[in-house]
Amino acid sequence: MAVRVVGFDGDDTLWHSETRFHVTQAEFRDLIHRHVPDADVDTRLSEMEMKNLAIYGYGVKSFTLSMLETAIELTEARIPAGDLEVILGWGKGMLMQPTELLSGVEDTLRELSGRYDLFLITKGDLFDQESKLARSGLGDLFLGVEILTEKNVDSYRGVFRRHGIQPDGFVMVGNSLRSDVVPVVALGGKAVHIPYQVTWQHEHVPEEELPKEGWRRVSAISELPALLAEL
Amino acid sequence: MAVRVVGFDGDDTLWHSETRFHVTQAEFRDLIHRHVPDADVDTRLSEMEMKNLAIYGYGVKSFTLSMLETAIELTEARIPAGDLEVILGWGKGMLMQPTELLSGVEDTLRELSGRYDLFLITKGDLFDQESKLARSGLGDLFLGVEILTEKNVDSYRGVFRRHGIQPDGFVMVGNSLRSDVVPVVALGGKAVHIPYQVTWQHEHVPEEELPKEGWRRVSAISELPALLAEL
Repeated sequence: MAVRVVGFDGDDTLWHSETRFHVTQAEFRDLIHRHVPDADVDTRLSEMEMKNLAIYGYGVKSFTLSMLETAIELTEARIPAGDLEVILGWGKGMLMQPTELLSGVEDTLRELSGRYDLFLITKGDLFDQESKLARSGLGDLFLGVEILTEKNVDSYRGVFRRHGIQPDGFVMVGNSLRSDVVPVVALGGKAVHIPYQVTWQHEHVPEEELPKEGWRRVSAISELPALLAEL
Repeated sequence: MAVRVVGFDGDDTLWHSETRFHVTQAEFRDLIHRHVPDADVDTRLSEMEMKNLAIYGYGVKSFTLSMLETAIELTEARIPAGDLEVILGWGKGMLMQPTELLSGVEDTLRELSGRYDLFLITKGDLFDQESKLARSGLGDLFLGVEILTEKNVDSYRGVFRRHGIQPDGFVMVGNSLRSDVVPVVALGGKAVHIPYQVTWQHEHVPEEELPKEGWRRVSAISELPALLAEL
């Protein structure tokens, strides 16, 4: 079946996201090292995020709360409130930054929107994602927007059902093998992986768990129109 | 046109929510008064929440972040990190509490689900709302679930469009005049207001801005089946 519907991930596929977390995390590391010079800040923060995932979910607010908790734990509550206020400010800064599109996104989406039904299928914090989409200027190009708490076989099945999408005419485009490729291929859809410069550790998939076929990899979104015409 | 679709708000309509915020806010007040005995904690926290609403959106994580910022500001950063850790713990506690249904909810929804298409239309934090719905045991009774960042004329119009709902065959049931009654009646739908024991100040609507007709008020959800049959 020819491609009729194309789903796009948002963070690190259409607009930059992970680099902001990396920049903030580097500032956080420096701040904590002023109090506890030998602390393994990255490992402890990552463990805290994983522990809190089932309570907070994804997103900047969750990340901010986990930074605060990590800072208090690592300093055994010796960190001054003024430093915690700085961390709160970083979180707000991340939420208020303009949506910075990746290269080629706008032209490619405009070109594809005449040929396919486009959906934004992203995960994370509802308010933050809607706010980023609104500021991206891309809103009108999507027939539908789905913001999910987790991207897995069940949640994609729900998207297909809600919009009457046939999996064999569907292609998902994203930077995460775990969230954008594996579950979609498992449901009989196709996927295009566009790696981003940084991948959150949580999104890694061991090579042996990757599907053998049903997905392709390109290095830039501008390669998409030609690839979709071929699929 | 007869009623065909019934939308339900979640927080303080199907399950308790605002009372938890009130309980936590009372603990917060006591904590701050130990450092700044004459602080007007409630006013300052409420102002902080309103200031942060455009950055954080609704929900427990946003409330927690606003409590932390208010605590630091009111104590001029003199509050010990250990006290801020206590506040972080309150937020987690609120997110992990079991979903406590209001009286009569389960029986009424089961009765109505045989006669109408039921939708959950709620606002707030996506992760928290989905988590509450999952723990409520009510998930299977809803034909669709819409978690919105804001409930206004535009967002209800989007819900109607996505699900092919005719406004004149739609009734919205909820505890908020601002979110559940005013925008729905403006779109030509009907509404049933079920007041909750506590209303967040933000949700108040001046009497003169209430629609003259198109909505009714009941004191308990168990009155709904008879009222809907009559509408």
